[in-house]
Amino acid sequence: MVIDGSDVLDNPNGTAPGLFLEHQGTSIALLPGPPREMRPMFENFVLPRLTEKSGNLRIVRRVLRVAGMGESAVDELIAPVYLQYENPQTTILFNHTEIEIQLTAHGRTEQEADALLDRLSEQLEERLGQSIFSFAGETMEEVVGLKLSVGRYSLSVAESCTGGLIAQRLTEVPGASKYFVEGVVAYSNEAKKRTLGVEPVLLLEHGAVSAPVAEAMAEGVRDRAGTDFGLSVTGIAGPDGGSEEKPVGLVYIALADDAHTEHRKLMLPGDRNLIRWRASQAALDLLRRRLI
Amino acid sequence: MVIDGSDVLDNPNGTAPGLFLEHQGTSIALLPGPPREMRPMFENFVLPRLTEKSGNLRIVRRVLRVAGMGESAVDELIAPVYLQYENPQTTILFNHTEIEIQLTAHGRTEQEADALLDRLSEQLEERLGQSIFSFAGETMEEVVGLKLSVGRYSLSVAESCTGGLIAQRLTEVPGASKYFVEGVVAYSNEAKKRTLGVEPVLLLEHGAVSAPVAEAMAEGVRDRAGTDFGLSVTGIAGPDGGSEEKPVGLVYIALADDAHTEHRKLMLPGDRNLIRWRASQAALDLLRRRLI
Repeated sequence: MVIDGSDVLDNPNGTAPGLFLEHQGTSIALLPGPPREMRPMFENFVLPRLTEKSGNLRIVRRVLRVAGMGESAVDELIAPVYLQYENPQTTILFNHTEIEIQLTAHGRTEQEADALLDRLSEQLEERLGQSIFSFAGETMEEVVGLKLSVGRYSLSVAESCTGGLIAQRLTEVPGASKYFVEGVVAYSNEAKKRTLGVEPVLLLEHGAVSAPVAEAMAEGVRDRAGTDFGLSVTGIAGPDGGSEEKPVGLVYIALADDAHTEHRKLMLPGDRNLIRWRASQAALDLLRRRLI
Repeated sequence: MVIDGSDVLDNPNGTAPGLFLEHQGTSIALLPGPPREMRPMFENFVLPRLTEKSGNLRIVRRVLRVAGMGESAVDELIAPVYLQYENPQTTILFNHTEIEIQLTAHGRTEQEADALLDRLSEQLEERLGQSIFSFAGETMEEVVGLKLSVGRYSLSVAESCTGGLIAQRLTEVPGASKYFVEGVVAYSNEAKKRTLGVEPVLLLEHGAVSAPVAEAMAEGVRDRAGTDFGLSVTGIAGPDGGSEEKPVGLVYIALADDAHTEHRKLMLPGDRNLIRWRASQAALDLLRRRLI
């Protein structure tokens, strides 16, 4: 078998060239990695060829992100909607740690493609409701940060198994100091008592990974920092530390404000890193839903 | 121009096939992304062909990682050494956030290739000394964790601009609870006073981003947690918050033990995420060097 067509693309740096292949109607571009070499080659060679092939069709993509639902549950709910459309095309992707709904529309103008995307995403929102947390690719921490900012709320966080991940995600967003006041990574029981004021009897009777301790951590950090909200996580991220009664993946999250404290019990699949990430996502999502 | 040779590789799942191309002595394999499709195709088709081409030559790679030095400084020091060898080949890579020295050796057996790597990496270590923190691809947090574990030391961390990143990196390592006790993300001045015991006068006279405050944070978290070491970071990660006197990228790190407290002043380049990551790396490296 022979590739239908191929061309060598000059590298402006004079180093490794690129290749542009045509095979059974598909174009494949192989470009060198460094951005300062790849970008001009893409812009000068690849893009013009693809534009020519596409007959000046405009393609627009949009990414919706979903929290708190599995891939198949999302698909079940929205398949009846998106299957009615060939344009936009819909792809449901389990992107490392969250569900992304990728919509791709084409039109003669960008406006035309955008209008098609608007119509479909409205219909998807009718089905998924508050589970969609992002309509333009924003991250969970950006969405939560914006809501806190707009409402002039302040937040503190108490973490055990996530080990600082929630604080780190929140403070990745520029300007987080407007709402994020303090985080405590209470990895040991001593730290939970000393810094978060968790009653020793709760740890003795229920263990560190329990609903009462999660709630006490959320209330404790909120009291310490004097914030509107206190958010907490305690769980078993593994690989060790699990038991029959409390297996790896068991996580409690809790949220406290001045009126009440609530918690959720989660059983999260995945390895240590995935469990930690999912726990951080679920905690941030609990706060997001409270802020709606 | 036509590619010298090409073959379609069957996908065991019956979906998108792969392509294997030969061009000017270089083999290029294009495989579908999902690991459960890519792996068998690599093992069944690609690896046998490459083995055949290589005449059963064994190729072994090793990655050394360097902290506290720039790419060109590393190259200047070690070029006189590695340029003496065609085998192993040496590549210095600025891999997102740290300097990696990648060594690739070939031999008739794995042992032969390994011996070549041993000889070169010893010579590189003579030049770079303690700046090499990893000889087998370990991360900084794994190296620090192992040293803490072996020495039975405990650690607490106080973070401002890194916002939990150091705690998160330390606790990514399974078993971190053996040495990591508590982390405080003191994002506001109030939190620095309240939870870390930083004297208000230090904040007033020197500002939150200063050597005295960094040292007070390290001592404060160490006192609170009762650990052998207290590690701290305070700085300006940007994009806002910089001034002429204290620009974006200015970071102080400090380390306290029972005998003394030391600090480093850093001017870190990059965007917000890169500054945060580099600050966390420098802080962990300060501790690593103390533990040698």
